[in-house]
Amino acid sequence: MSFTATVLTLYPEMFPGPLGVSLAGRAHAAGTWSMNAVQIRDFATDKHRTVDDTPAGGGAGMVLKPDVLARAIDHARGLSPDAPVLAMTPRGRPISQARIRELAAGPGVTIVCGRFEGFDERIFDGREVEEVSVGDIVLSGGEPAALMVLDACIRLLPGVMGAAWSGVEESFESGLLEYPHYTRPVTWEGRTIPEVLRSGDHAKIAAWRKQRAEDDTRLRRPDLWDRHGDGRVRSASGARQED
Amino acid sequence: MSFTATVLTLYPEMFPGPLGVSLAGRAHAAGTWSMNAVQIRDFATDKHRTVDDTPAGGGAGMVLKPDVLARAIDHARGLSPDAPVLAMTPRGRPISQARIRELAAGPGVTIVCGRFEGFDERIFDGREVEEVSVGDIVLSGGEPAALMVLDACIRLLPGVMGAAWSGVEESFESGLLEYPHYTRPVTWEGRTIPEVLRSGDHAKIAAWRKQRAEDDTRLRRPDLWDRHGDGRVRSASGARQED
Repeated sequence: MSFTATVLTLYPEMFPGPLGVSLAGRAHAAGTWSMNAVQIRDFATDKHRTVDDTPAGGGAGMVLKPDVLARAIDHARGLSPDAPVLAMTPRGRPISQARIRELAAGPGVTIVCGRFEGFDERIFDGREVEEVSVGDIVLSGGEPAALMVLDACIRLLPGVMGAAWSGVEESFESGLLEYPHYTRPVTWEGRTIPEVLRSGDHAKIAAWRKQRAEDDTRLRRPDLWDRHGDGRVRSASGARQED
Repeated sequence: MSFTATVLTLYPEMFPGPLGVSLAGRAHAAGTWSMNAVQIRDFATDKHRTVDDTPAGGGAGMVLKPDVLARAIDHARGLSPDAPVLAMTPRGRPISQARIRELAAGPGVTIVCGRFEGFDERIFDGREVEEVSVGDIVLSGGEPAALMVLDACIRLLPGVMGAAWSGVEESFESGLLEYPHYTRPVTWEGRTIPEVLRSGDHAKIAAWRKQRAEDDTRLRRPDLWDRHGDGRVRSASGARQED
């Protein structure tokens, strides 16, 4: 079964864009995933094909109309009935690698991209839509964020990364940053690959990598480190309950 | 002066991609920004144009070689001498809207995109490179993240968003999520725009929006809310010191 990526956007020409190249592009050509780029404007009903209107209560920008969005979402449900519907919005919850893994294991994903000031809030009550964000920066629209989410899903589809990657522990999977990497030359501009990595002692290498992953997470991402700590506490008390 | 976006990548054909369309595309055509997509492979020196090698100490994937990366970065410094160099990596610090605003106010940005397992760590010691991430998800490469960072910068360049947006308080700028938006129709599928937004009472509207921004941030993003709280405490003690 092919993974179906459906994007609702005012700029369908942005898709597949970078996903038509490299790993994702080859997987698309091989039929591992398929892409529907749906023009939201096709679901406007007036002769000017209006998709937005001024914000109630005043303010800058324009807001995407709930009636037009609902018709576009209902159309996407017809194309891909079992795919969860995500909306890219800075008001959403940050999407996690765990959620990406769930999406990649399913039939596909439908992503609604906003432009202008955003979505009419009632759409989230009137339709089943998951509000997600990717990074705390403001974009001109949801499209670049949708490309990121799709790329993250597609690389996990069967056969895309190749057998060498299966079961590899990656960034965020353990709740930690990944340890640093080195490759040849052994000495570059006077900087030498750490001794331990050239020792051939697999236990020492594993211990060094674990230590570096922990140290770097604590230093660079105290937010991740705190959550990682919480997880260990919970798991320890869970183990005690089983005693 | 035009803003110069330089990307070092193994897939230069991904750029400008979605940035060639819509707001960013029009600004590109108008000369507000320019794009250099540099092929990292052009800086390999062997006849196979090798850019990566196996990780020291073993493990899956391939690591981008420091010598090739350094030559590519040195070339980019020649193209855009005063632009800061960013590398997209899940080991980086999450990029903030404040950093985006700084970048957009400068001469441009150079972004190094990894593929495979990542960069040889020595590059961050040997060259001045800022490691940044966008969201805690794993991509097939840095390119989709680079597109996001560039989009966020470009929309802030003079003239791109239009005068109506200047000075608008946006998501994350205040350390809070934005309040929800509504537009016509007043009633959609039995759901009516909140009364206060139709009252014409600007003070009440502003108070409602502030309350919703705070409530939604506390509920959806306790991490942002905690930092927002810290900020207020620091600013209060700062005021006391001035007394």
